[in-house]
Amino acid sequence: MENVLAVLNLGDLAHAFSKMGMFPVFDLAYYIVSILYLKYEPGSVEVSRRSPVASWLCAMLYCFGSYILADIMLGSSPLDYFQHNSHILLASAVWYLIFYCPLNLFYKCVAFLPVKMVLVGLKEVVRVRKIAAGVHHAHHAYHHGFFIMVIVGYVKGSGVALMSNFEQLLRGVWRPETNEILSMSFPTKASLYGAILFTLQEAHWLPVSKSTLILVFTLFMATCKVVMTARHSHGSPFALIESWVCHLLFGSPLCGDEDNHHPPAAVPSSPLKTKEELSEGARKRKAKKAE
Amino acid sequence: MENVLAVLNLGDLAHAFSKMGMFPVFDLAYYIVSILYLKYEPGSVEVSRRSPVASWLCAMLYCFGSYILADIMLGSSPLDYFQHNSHILLASAVWYLIFYCPLNLFYKCVAFLPVKMVLVGLKEVVRVRKIAAGVHHAHHAYHHGFFIMVIVGYVKGSGVALMSNFEQLLRGVWRPETNEILSMSFPTKASLYGAILFTLQEAHWLPVSKSTLILVFTLFMATCKVVMTARHSHGSPFALIESWVCHLLFGSPLCGDEDNHHPPAAVPSSPLKTKEELSEGARKRKAKKAE
Amino acid sequence: MENVLAVLNLGDLAHAFSKMGMFPVFDLAYYIVSILYLKYEPGSVEVSRRSPVASWLCAMLYCFGSYILADIMLGSSPLDYFQHNSHILLASAVWYLIFYCPLNLFYKCVAFLPVKMVLVGLKEVVRVRKIAAGVHHAHHAYHHGFFIMVIVGYVKGSGVALMSNFEQLLRGVWRPETNEILSMSFPTKASLYGAILFTLQEAHWLPVSKSTLILVFTLFMATCKVVMTARHSHGSPFALIESWVCHLLFGSPLCGDEDNHHPPAAVPSSPLKTKEELSEGARKRKAKKAE
Repeated sequence: MENVLAVLNLGDLAHAFSKMGMFPVFDLAYYIVSILYLKYEPGSVEVSRRSPVASWLCAMLYCFGSYILADIMLGSSPLDYFQHNSHILLASAVWYLIFYCPLNLFYKCVAFLPVKMVLVGLKEVVRVRKIAAGVHHAHHAYHHGFFIMVIVGYVKGSGVALMSNFEQLLRGVWRPETNEILSMSFPTKASLYGAILFTLQEAHWLPVSKSTLILVFTLFMATCKVVMTARHSHGSPFALIESWVCHLLFGSPLCGDEDNHHPPAAVPSSPLKTKEELSEGARKRKAKKAE
Repeated sequence: MENVLAVLNLGDLAHAFSKMGMFPVFDLAYYIVSILYLKYEPGSVEVSRRSPVASWLCAMLYCFGSYILADIMLGSSPLDYFQHNSHILLASAVWYLIFYCPLNLFYKCVAFLPVKMVLVGLKEVVRVRKIAAGVHHAHHAYHHGFFIMVIVGYVKGSGVALMSNFEQLLRGVWRPETNEILSMSFPTKASLYGAILFTLQEAHWLPVSKSTLILVFTLFMATCKVVMTARHSHGSPFALIESWVCHLLFGSPLCGDEDNHHPPAAVPSSPLKTKEELSEGARKRKAKKAE
Repeated sequence: MENVLAVLNLGDLAHAFSKMGMFPVFDLAYYIVSILYLKYEPGSVEVSRRSPVASWLCAMLYCFGSYILADIMLGSSPLDYFQHNSHILLASAVWYLIFYCPLNLFYKCVAFLPVKMVLVGLKEVVRVRKIAAGVHHAHHAYHHGFFIMVIVGYVKGSGVALMSNFEQLLRGVWRPETNEILSMSFPTKASLYGAILFTLQEAHWLPVSKSTLILVFTLFMATCKVVMTARHSHGSPFALIESWVCHLLFGSPLCGDEDNHHPPAAVPSSPLKTKEELSEGARKRKAKKAE
């Protein structure tokens, strides 16, 4: 791959890309998309009216959850990133505009599909950079701690998703029957695979430079997320491979789209229901009522 | 304000007051009032009979929750404060006397209103000192981390209230529909405002000395809490100002006592219910039964 | 006791025993028994099929929960122990064999009672060593922090049990009405008493060498657990003494086997139910259905 890129004269591009600063443009896109997802959560608008402090805290978790989790994992202060006042102020401004802007103007602008697609793409650039930084940071602290590198890269990429149960609790919502690890969404899964790739690269088991890996993985993530946003899809491009690998390794029931659409009929009495299943159930019930 | 105090020769008083040691008298009052509130919690007496270890742990959280939370926030050991054996032993003695004293004698003494009013006043002295120390500590660690200062001062002032969901869980109680940030009580709110004031002072944006601020804020807090204890009130002196500010800034429904008595009728299906709402519901149901 | 041991020429034995390495044989037994208990948990097999990542994380919590908790308590990185790749790989291999071995062969071997009794005995050797190491580690960090020593030794001995509520949450199960501190199992209780003993030893208030204490306490724990495993019993050898002490000190209702079989009839409306009570209820309901 390195050779192919060299031929295409992409090595320099990758290096330049990997050195590009994220603040403020990319970070701004990250904050906007993250807080947009917070606003999509049922009940979050009521919370923003009733308790602005709780709403602001949730917004901060959405924007900086990855830093908080990674700092906890490495034994630093979970507030460490909050020393960057300009980042916090920028995220707070975004939070204010998305939740309290007159006529909901800002929200309507950024939720407009073409704008949102651009922002979602920019957000993935930040995510991949975070995974790489997380793995590198963990490598610095534990030179041979490969599991630690993967875990820190993973939480850096997944961010608030991994603590969604507790973020919801802050808003008075408690859904113990599922969590992001039991039923991983696409970005969480991709973060895990990305963290493994960057760890392999850091351990020199992957014959590719870090900047190239950043470029390639960013292109992959941005493309996937932009396409998924455009198609309002939650399917994962990994589904087919995963299904076969899980079937072979873990004896999981073989089913191409198991994770996203049809939970295996064999576990109807299971206490574990993914968000999809639950919302599917709700949809069916509504449909029944409508009839 | 500094001038006024100088004229009244209060500057020296403020300085002497801010240097006054808290151990053992003020700390003792703090422990007594805190564990008294623990005993008021429904079910806590049963827990003290069934599992003294759980009861003792809850008591320690009530007494030292602010230190535990602040240590976590700053990345130190959450047990750091437990190295002060004399404080732990004093708090443990108070816990034993309040829960297991023959004839409930100790409890009856300290819950006697005039005694309790004095103790509550002394407790607020400790609380304000903790907020100031928390902000100062955070300022030491993060010289320009204003958000960190506010958060650490806030958790130092609020203590166990901010982790009440998990403190209850230790006693086998789980109330996810509310938490101290969604529906802040007066001490929690005052701690937040106090933390902001002390942070402004630490950043030299407030033209007042720290000792004066400690004195004035202590007088305010002690007066409020003593009056509220005497009147068995949970209303907040901030309610009116807050209501207007929240209405202007966050579009919250305008309602003088919204936070304490009448939740806005517009969100009846909201999953979020404050303690007040819940207990109101319980009261109504009881009233109905009685009819 | 030191004298008696000297006469029996056991001092050298105790010293040699306390220097014996735990990796890999004893650690292997620890991992096998721990993950075996995970497989006994209702729903854990479904989780292993649906989400191998969640299942692996639970297995790691079962194997390394004591290290994670102790690191959190002392303000280190909770992932610190994960730098020992060989330990993690060994535990992961055990997890894979127990959950995914064809024909369930490995599980059947290690769950075979005579094999399990040996493994359970070996596990207790590791547990006692962990308590001693935890107390020693805390003593190193806080020279006079006796409470910290007890707490760290306790969490090192109890491990995942103390965070069982959150470990269950990872598998989509939420049982807030009980926890390991409200209704302690035998190993948790023994860990607490062991931590107190080792703290007394570390503070030179117990006239016995550490290696002797390790030997004696290991013999006690291993015997108890092997006998309990053989008899499928959950009763505690401490029950009688505890009942009297708790009655005298904390006014708990006097009842020889209260903790394990008959919860006091006086608290039927209590929101607190031990696992035993709950499973008893479930058993009764099943029995009723069967009739």
